[in-house]
Parts: sequence; structure tokens; C-alpha cells
Amino acid sequence: MKLSNFGKKFTAGTGIVELMDDLGTALNENPDMVFMGGGNPGRIPEAEAIFKQRLETVLADPDQLHSLMGIYQSPQGDRLFRDQIASLLRKEFGWNLSGRNIAVSNGSQSAFFILYNMLAGKMPDGSSKSIHLPLAPEYIGYGDIGLQDNFFTATKPEIELLEDNQFKYHVDFSRLEVSEQSTGALCVSRPTNPTGNVLTDNEIEHLDEIARGADIPFIIDGAYGLPFPGILFNQAKPHWNDNTILVLSLSKLGLPGVRTGIIVAREDIIQAYSNANTVVSLACGNLGPTIARELFRTGEILSLSRQLIGPFYQQRAEQAVSLFRVALGDLPYRIHRPEGAIFLWLWFDGLPISSQELYERLKARGLLVVPGHNFFPGMDSDWRHQQECIRVSYAQDAKTVELGIKMIAEEVMAAYQQEIQPV
Amino acid sequence: MKLSNFGKKFTAGTGIVELMDDLGTALNENPDMVFMGGGNPGRIPEAEAIFKQRLETVLADPDQLHSLMGIYQSPQGDRLFRDQIASLLRKEFGWNLSGRNIAVSNGSQSAFFILYNMLAGKMPDGSSKSIHLPLAPEYIGYGDIGLQDNFFTATKPEIELLEDNQFKYHVDFSRLEVSEQSTGALCVSRPTNPTGNVLTDNEIEHLDEIARGADIPFIIDGAYGLPFPGILFNQAKPHWNDNTILVLSLSKLGLPGVRTGIIVAREDIIQAYSNANTVVSLACGNLGPTIARELFRTGEILSLSRQLIGPFYQQRAEQAVSLFRVALGDLPYRIHRPEGAIFLWLWFDGLPISSQELYERLKARGLLVVPGHNFFPGMDSDWRHQQECIRVSYAQDAKTVELGIKMIAEEVMAAYQQEIQPV
Repeated sequence: MKLSNFGKKFTAGTGIVELMDDLGTALNENPDMVFMGGGNPGRIPEAEAIFKQRLETVLADPDQLHSLMGIYQSPQGDRLFRDQIASLLRKEFGWNLSGRNIAVSNGSQSAFFILYNMLAGKMPDGSSKSIHLPLAPEYIGYGDIGLQDNFFTATKPEIELLEDNQFKYHVDFSRLEVSEQSTGALCVSRPTNPTGNVLTDNEIEHLDEIARGADIPFIIDGAYGLPFPGILFNQAKPHWNDNTILVLSLSKLGLPGVRTGIIVAREDIIQAYSNANTVVSLACGNLGPTIARELFRTGEILSLSRQLIGPFYQQRAEQAVSLFRVALGDLPYRIHRPEGAIFLWLWFDGLPISSQELYERLKARGLLVVPGHNFFPGMDSDWRHQQECIRVSYAQDAKTVELGIKMIAEEVMAAYQQEIQPV
Repeated sequence: MKLSNFGKKFTAGTGIVELMDDLGTALNENPDMVFMGGGNPGRIPEAEAIFKQRLETVLADPDQLHSLMGIYQSPQGDRLFRDQIASLLRKEFGWNLSGRNIAVSNGSQSAFFILYNMLAGKMPDGSSKSIHLPLAPEYIGYGDIGLQDNFFTATKPEIELLEDNQFKYHVDFSRLEVSEQSTGALCVSRPTNPTGNVLTDNEIEHLDEIARGADIPFIIDGAYGLPFPGILFNQAKPHWNDNTILVLSLSKLGLPGVRTGIIVAREDIIQAYSNANTVVSLACGNLGPTIARELFRTGEILSLSRQLIGPFYQQRAEQAVSLFRVALGDLPYRIHRPEGAIFLWLWFDGLPISSQELYERLKARGLLVVPGHNFFPGMDSDWRHQQECIRVSYAQDAKTVELGIKMIAEEVMAAYQQEIQPV
């Protein structure tokens, strides 16, 4: 098979391909694998019951059922759904929005594919622009999404060492270099995937100013964040204005199978996105909007996030940290302060093996995690720290998490011991 | 907003954007529009009942419901679903397939975006390749899907004039030019969208030989065709072999809202596609596989296609042709012989106005069709025929079709009269 440049680049096995392969194997095909890898959400019966009830209502109404199955959604997304989202966000946060500021996507990955590539890469004047990530590490799924090479740039973070073997990344504004000529947009995930970091309100405001100063959009990936699914364990303000592109998702509410992303942005950006999405995808799936529409109309999406989803993961995070403390004991480990999302980010300072090697040893034992070096799109590879971290999901049930943590501790201990013992 | 080259190209309003906008307006927002535009399938209660029953079964089973909503599908698609598709195709047609020859997509448009761009466009050696369409006109949705300009080439058809104001396009093999150096793949839709033409078994075999001779894949877009949804009104053989990429869809069974495409191809092609699809879309929606899985296991997907879906549209096609005959009377019209799909393709020889102008006049009256000039990707624009055709869907209820045909006849008559009357 003779592949084009696009073919060569996009069909190569990559971090996100390995992650989703692992996830598919563990969750769909081989239930014996201990799964702490990809971002599959946990199972929350109360949330499932709400979604189920909503589907039952749809099935009982021939018109709603026909709309779910038998009609293509409008290119920008179901109008009623978009109006209800805009109305809720306007009412709750005072954002100046209508349905024309909202677009639907087949999951946020496909939204990012279009948004990133329409703002960066080869420009009409022959120059190239990057998407700049102000705080590395960042999401693995961005890594290979650019149509050109060297699509991302990233700023190395400040590391604050905290008590109790914790640490926290901060945006190092002294190193942050952005220019209208070479940068197409700034992007952060908040909470950060993989670290569970939540950029402070001050950091967000500062980044917003920098983006405005360079006349480029500021993209916030809110897949785990604000205002829904609200998986944050501290106080943080939702952020949007007409220079912000906020990308949200229904996945972490417990609905990854519906593939629904939501984009909140200025009308010209939404229109451009929708046109491109029509060419790339024709239309989006109806299941997500059908299930969620009522939750937006009633505002239940926010109470569900605040009262059920957020607290569920906070309890899991605390439990996982405690278990790691016991299991890792005196090993030279640090855990990024868990402020949100569904992962712990572990840093093993001076780890004698690469994060890929640790991942492979764990996989051979039947445990899936994600090696940390995949989470540094746009960073030079010579920073050793990138090889010393792993991302561990705590979304599965408590027994799975406990078993996995024990296995990680054993392998990490073996890796450190291997170095000090002569072979 | 400063757009990249990709942004400029993909966010421009295009034929498919206009078509889907019209569709969205007519079917979701403004039910007063008479809809004969985009490819939304008709409403077939017996088929809806089958899908509804399947969903009821899923809702009654907590594990199936959790799989539908709460788990990411494997990158290549649900394994059980793929195995069942392969098993049915192997049993029914003797094709040498396993689940490893099947991939799932979020609708066939997104499958074509990846397949086309991985096989054509800029090549690693600096050359460019096109996707060649051996029989123009072809599907509007291909038009803007290429990452490079001049992405398609097409062969002008032979036109056979038939009795009763009908005609039929044939592949003009004497003009067909394909080379390994400049062509990435051949592609045909079968039945052809927009014309309802069904390439003969001989034409398909001849094209297959040509593709093999040039060592390039032969892509068949079977969205309306074989073996399902089977919207064909004559005898034709399903075609697949290891040089064929067959792209199928659940949409025209009555399920456009689930966004499920199915790709049948050699394992290396499927693997390459799946990797790229992971980067572009992360995973596919679960609703389509969940509804259809049982239909593949039992083979009901084929009986449904042959006994319900196909005959439904054949009856509609015959009715629409009769109504057009009466309404158009002595006007210089021709209808492409309806052999499949859900459209009639009308050719108004010497039409004094462009197909775009006719479309706009009809839209102003409250009727949506699709102007024909959009269906010639890869063709030079100087062939007048491209401006003399429209595509008309007969999928809506009989009253809608009857009303729409009356409006078309009136506008076409006015257009011809306008020319002969001095202004």
C-alpha cells in the first residue's frame, strides 16, 4: 500500500493509538487485565439511572425515537440542544451566548482535530504556526493530531515541591513565548490531563491576556472540568469570553459511548468549525444530544456534576493517594497534587528505567497504565523528567485500584533495586 | 480569525455544507419546507419497530446499557460486531474475511476523509496523486474532502439515450486514464449517488482489473447498495476482493442519526485506517453497533434490505417517475433510469438557466433539491451538461413528493419560457 504524506503520518502507531488499543482490549475483550490506562470514566449507578430514564422516555415517544435514529442532525448540531446549552451558560455564568455560539462534535477529539488544524500549521503566506501548550505535560491525544510536523510548542513548567511527597506544576510565565507570527492558539486542559492539576484563576486570566495581546484564540479543553462534568476538587471559576474556545464533552459524565463534544466560541469560529465538520464528518451523532437535552433544560447537568460526579472522583482520588502512600513507602516517589480529573500523575525521581519500560513491565504482569513520555507534545526530548512519570486512572472500582497500586509499587521497587544491585 | 491553509479550504461554504444546512433546516427546524434535498432516508415503520425492539432489549439489560453508554469502543470497532459482519459476508458471498478485515467509522463521510487522504494528495516523493472517479457525476460529499487542491480526477461518461425520456451513463473506458504514478485509487458509488445508476457487473469487473493493473485500491461506496441496505432495482452482484475497499453504512436502513460506517478491506488497510481514525476521532459511537449487532448475527440485515428497504424505494421511484412524466409533459427533460438509491436525476437539455439558479428559484418557493453542478468533482467546468441537471429525493412521503414534482415542473417550464419570450 502506497501512503500519502497524510497517510504516513496518521497511520503510524502512536501514543494515543496504543492507549486506545489497550483500553479496548481491557474493557471490551479481556476483562482479566487490570485497567488503569485510558480515560474511561467510572461507573456511577445514580448517573446511569438518569440516562436510562431519559432513553426510556425517548423510546416511548415515536417522534423522539425517529429524531434519534432517522434524521441527520444539523451540521452545527441540534438547534434545541444548542439553545438550551447557551441558555444555561448565560443564566448561570452571565456569558453572552446564544445557540449560534455552540457547535456539537463527534467527541472532543474530532473537535480538536478541526480546531487545531484550522488555526495552525501551514499558513496562506507560506509561514507555519504552532499550537502552544503553556503548561507541559499535556494531553496525549493532541500529540499526533497536527497535519504538519512540529505542530506543537510547549513551555517547560515550574515545579513546586509540596509536603507529603506531593508536587505541583505551574505555568512558568518567564519562559512563555508567544507571538502572533508563529503561534496559532494557546491551549490548556483544565483540569490538566494527565496530571489532575487545575490551573488557578490567576493563571487562566494571565493566559487570557497573553492570547488577547497576540490576537490569537485561547482554547480551554474542559473535558473533565467546568462547568460540567465538574471533576475538580478545589475552587476554580469557569472561564469564557469571546476570545476563548471552550471545548466540553459528555464523556466523563459517564457517556463516552455517545461521542458528543460541545464547542463554545465566537460565532465566526463556530461557523468555520461547522463548515469544516460537515466536510469531514457530514453530521454528528444524535444519541448524546438526545440524552442530555433535558439535563440542560432543567439545569440538572450542573447539580449532577457538583453533587455526584465530582464527589465520586474526589473520594476515589483520596483513596488512591492513601493506598499509594502505604504501597510506595520510602521509595523516591512524588504524586502531583490531585485537584481534578480521574488520574494520578506519579513522578519517580531518578527512575532507572524509562516510563515506556515500566509500562511494558506492568502490561506483561496484566496491568495497564499510560507511560508519561507521551504527554509532552511540543517539548524537547532531553528533559529526563519526561521519562520518570506515569499516568494512573482511579476510575475503576476500588478493588481494581488497590490491586493495581500494589503491582505498580512492586515493579517500581524492582526497578530501583535493579540499579543498586550488580547484575 | 487567521486561518491556516487547511482552515481556508475546509471552512469555505461548499456544496455539501449547503446541502446539509438545507437538510437541517427542513427536517429539524422548518417543517414547512418541501424536502427533496439531502439523502435523509424515508420513514419505514416496520424497520423502526425492529430497531426500537432492539433498543428495548438493551435498556432492559444493565450490562448492555453500560456498554452502549459508558465504554469507549475499540479503535477498530466493537470486536463482536466486526466478527458478526465478517461471518455473515463470508457465509453469504464466500468472501475470505475475518473481523480483522472490518473497521467501524463515525459514518461513511469520515471514513472517506481518512481513506482518500491516506491514499492520495501529496506523496512522500514530492509527487501528487488523485482519487479517480471513473464515472462522473459522483457524490457531492467527496468534492471538498481532499487536503490538497485538484484532489479528484474524473472520466466523462458515455450517455445512452433510452426510450420514454430516460437515459443512462456508462463508464467510457476509452477515455479512462489511470496510472500508478498519478492515481491513488479508483472510486465509484454503487448505486451512484446522485443518479441512481447501478454500474453493471461487467463494468465493476473491468474497473477491478484496471485498479489491479495499476496496483491501486478500488473503492466501492456502497452506502445505498450491496449487500445492505440493498436499494437496487435490478440484478447486480456484490463485489469484494483483497484489492477492494468496500465502504458500507447503516444510514439508509433508516439510521442516519447513529453515524455508523463499516469498512471492509485487506488487513493492512484496515489497520492503517484504524490508527488514523484513532488520532482523528478517538473512537466511534456505540449506538449503531449496538442496534445492528443482532441483525448481523441472525442475517436479518439482509432480509430487511431485500424484502423491506429495497422494495419501499422501488415503489417510490416508480411513482416519482410517473408523476414527473405527467408534470413535465413535452418539456425537453430526461430522467436517468432509476436503478437504485433514493434519488431521481433529471436532465433538462438546453436549460436556459444554471442548475444553481433553478435550485435557488425552487428554494425561494419553499422546495429543496440539490443542484447538479455539485456532483462533478474532478471534471472540467466547461461541459454544459453539468448545469442542466438536478438531484431530487423521493424518500419523503408521497404527498410531499407529489407537491415537489409539481413545483419543479412549473419552475422548469417558466425557465424555458423565459428564454423564448422577449423580456
